[in-house]
Amino acid sequence: MIQFEVEANCGNSRAGTLQTPHGKIHTPIFMPVGTLGTVKGMTPEEVAEIGAEIILGNTYHLHLRPGDDLVKKMGGLHKFMNWHGPILTDSGGFQVFSLAKLLKLNEEGVEIRSHLDGTKIKLTPEISIAIQQNLGSTIMMCLDECLELPATRIEVERSIGLTARWAKRCKEARTKSRGVFGEQALFGIFQGGGELDLREQSLEQIVEIDFDGYAIGGLSVGESKEEMYRVAHHIAPKMPAEKPRYLMGVGDPEDLLEGIEAGIDMFDCVMPTRNARNGSLFTSRGKISIKQSRFQQDPEPLDPDCACSTCQNYSRAYLRHLFKSNEILGVRLNTYHNLFFYLSLVKGARAAIKQQRFSAFKKDFLEKYRSGLDGD
Amino acid sequence: MIQFEVEANCGNSRAGTLQTPHGKIHTPIFMPVGTLGTVKGMTPEEVAEIGAEIILGNTYHLHLRPGDDLVKKMGGLHKFMNWHGPILTDSGGFQVFSLAKLLKLNEEGVEIRSHLDGTKIKLTPEISIAIQQNLGSTIMMCLDECLELPATRIEVERSIGLTARWAKRCKEARTKSRGVFGEQALFGIFQGGGELDLREQSLEQIVEIDFDGYAIGGLSVGESKEEMYRVAHHIAPKMPAEKPRYLMGVGDPEDLLEGIEAGIDMFDCVMPTRNARNGSLFTSRGKISIKQSRFQQDPEPLDPDCACSTCQNYSRAYLRHLFKSNEILGVRLNTYHNLFFYLSLVKGARAAIKQQRFSAFKKDFLEKYRSGLDGD
Repeated sequence: MIQFEVEANCGNSRAGTLQTPHGKIHTPIFMPVGTLGTVKGMTPEEVAEIGAEIILGNTYHLHLRPGDDLVKKMGGLHKFMNWHGPILTDSGGFQVFSLAKLLKLNEEGVEIRSHLDGTKIKLTPEISIAIQQNLGSTIMMCLDECLELPATRIEVERSIGLTARWAKRCKEARTKSRGVFGEQALFGIFQGGGELDLREQSLEQIVEIDFDGYAIGGLSVGESKEEMYRVAHHIAPKMPAEKPRYLMGVGDPEDLLEGIEAGIDMFDCVMPTRNARNGSLFTSRGKISIKQSRFQQDPEPLDPDCACSTCQNYSRAYLRHLFKSNEILGVRLNTYHNLFFYLSLVKGARAAIKQQRFSAFKKDFLEKYRSGLDGD
Repeated sequence: MIQFEVEANCGNSRAGTLQTPHGKIHTPIFMPVGTLGTVKGMTPEEVAEIGAEIILGNTYHLHLRPGDDLVKKMGGLHKFMNWHGPILTDSGGFQVFSLAKLLKLNEEGVEIRSHLDGTKIKLTPEISIAIQQNLGSTIMMCLDECLELPATRIEVERSIGLTARWAKRCKEARTKSRGVFGEQALFGIFQGGGELDLREQSLEQIVEIDFDGYAIGGLSVGESKEEMYRVAHHIAPKMPAEKPRYLMGVGDPEDLLEGIEAGIDMFDCVMPTRNARNGSLFTSRGKISIKQSRFQQDPEPLDPDCACSTCQNYSRAYLRHLFKSNEILGVRLNTYHNLFFYLSLVKGARAAIKQQRFSAFKKDFLEKYRSGLDGD
């Protein structure tokens, strides 16, 4: 189904390859988010061009629009959206607890109201797997409970128990009925908030069930960066070394480097795409807001050190003009650049790990990144 | 500067080549509209890919945003937007009379309020040429008065007089001071409403001044199709045969064929791009609205007879999903297809003219086009 191999270690960080039925993924990797069957603003060809080897689809969103039944009828998500590389689908859990209105949460699952039109929707481990089988993703995720932080220790304890029982049901659901699109891998998610011993306990419970990969859930949900780094550095090295490790919903360039240092292999985040639409752009010298008037007459490329087509062909003045005029091309060029920046970062990290110089890579990157655009 | 050659005639219709400092144009040609220095939703690479050999920029819009001074500083419109093929700029006249609030119209020119922020703007023949020289377009257009139709004969008579005097001043302005971007061609525009004798009179006055090409102005401004075709068929064959003939702001696929039959070489219209954004798509079997529920589960390509990448890679169901979800990719794929459709149409017409079978081409196209999507 999927096969993971660690090629090199450097401290806790690792460079690996993940072979899937839809193609090979070189880790560490960043997965662009394609919420509704499209990485917003990009064609699949462009997604491949910027070096993305796997994208993420949102089970909750696709269940609502266009509906997973329709996607199944149209031949699965790969065919529907014309992306033939690996796709990871989340379980819908995160959106259920963040975006929708929660009506009921019990042992069986959750009942929610859709954020779109108020329709009542039921989500259980079995339903989540069925939806992900209709979508035909390469990697499915288990339904988990995402607690809002801060939470009391008692709440966290209750929650990891439920998450483990749901994980077991997800695995059983997959074993019982295979989807029409063939074998799909399944990753387990563990929780535990900021309590390190509960994190360990949750991880142990999930690993016990045995999955194709493991994910840290419930981080980047409002806690401080220090808190997130503390948990990641503590728990990532304890995750099974022979399986891919995924830090869900993380993060900015600094978070990625920190996660990679902790031993994480996979990341996803809406930040590069969402920020791009708001004119917030990542450069090797830090984040900039392209709408600022200082760029009005600036003939320089967005990031002179970037090899992407946006930076090769357009000036900051032009990007600012497109943004101020609400031109679609602005969103396109910004998104292309931000994703290229993220994928270049993980590619650079991978090369550094293989050359046993990840610490130096991280230090150099951050020094420049924190120096600011006018740091020359 | 520019050189036009008619390669083949077929009835009144012609196939030609227009050599410009920015590249060769094969006529008849359709020019996608790039209002604000971008063909909405498309990269310049894609614009070239769909077969567009020249695009149009709007002087009025670019004067307001980002400002022609800025464009000049950034190296001209070609460099600013990274389109290195020919660009035709209009004079600003059409927007002045349609979009902005007209404050004053006299012999000297017009005073208007910007539709964006109410700023007072003056436009005279000399100012229009100066702006177009700042933009550095390949072909500039003379400032003309666009009368709203219907208009009385007396109004039309007054108007063509003013248009001729303005045309003369445009030519003098260009002769007096060359822009920083080298020689730019200048086309004259004649008016005359629906009065055929006044059309002839206006044409004569404009030809007398001697321009690099001639344009029919003041059509497709609210009159009936019959009226437009009547004027075009009457006047186009009387336009100088050795110069390019341009029918401004026209039109839908039927209008293009009618214009080509009348002897027109160049067209521009926002229809393919604007319609695309509204989900109105051109197919070889007529126009469709992609949002209709009949396409919800339709796995077929938008136009099975179309060779564009949208039709090669995506289903109607997917395009409908993108449109309903307001996804940018929907606008992109729709725009790509509609422009490809337009450019394929003029390419087909050109080939037919060279093979002396334009009438049959027109008849076949329209028969199929009017048969409807479910006409099989």
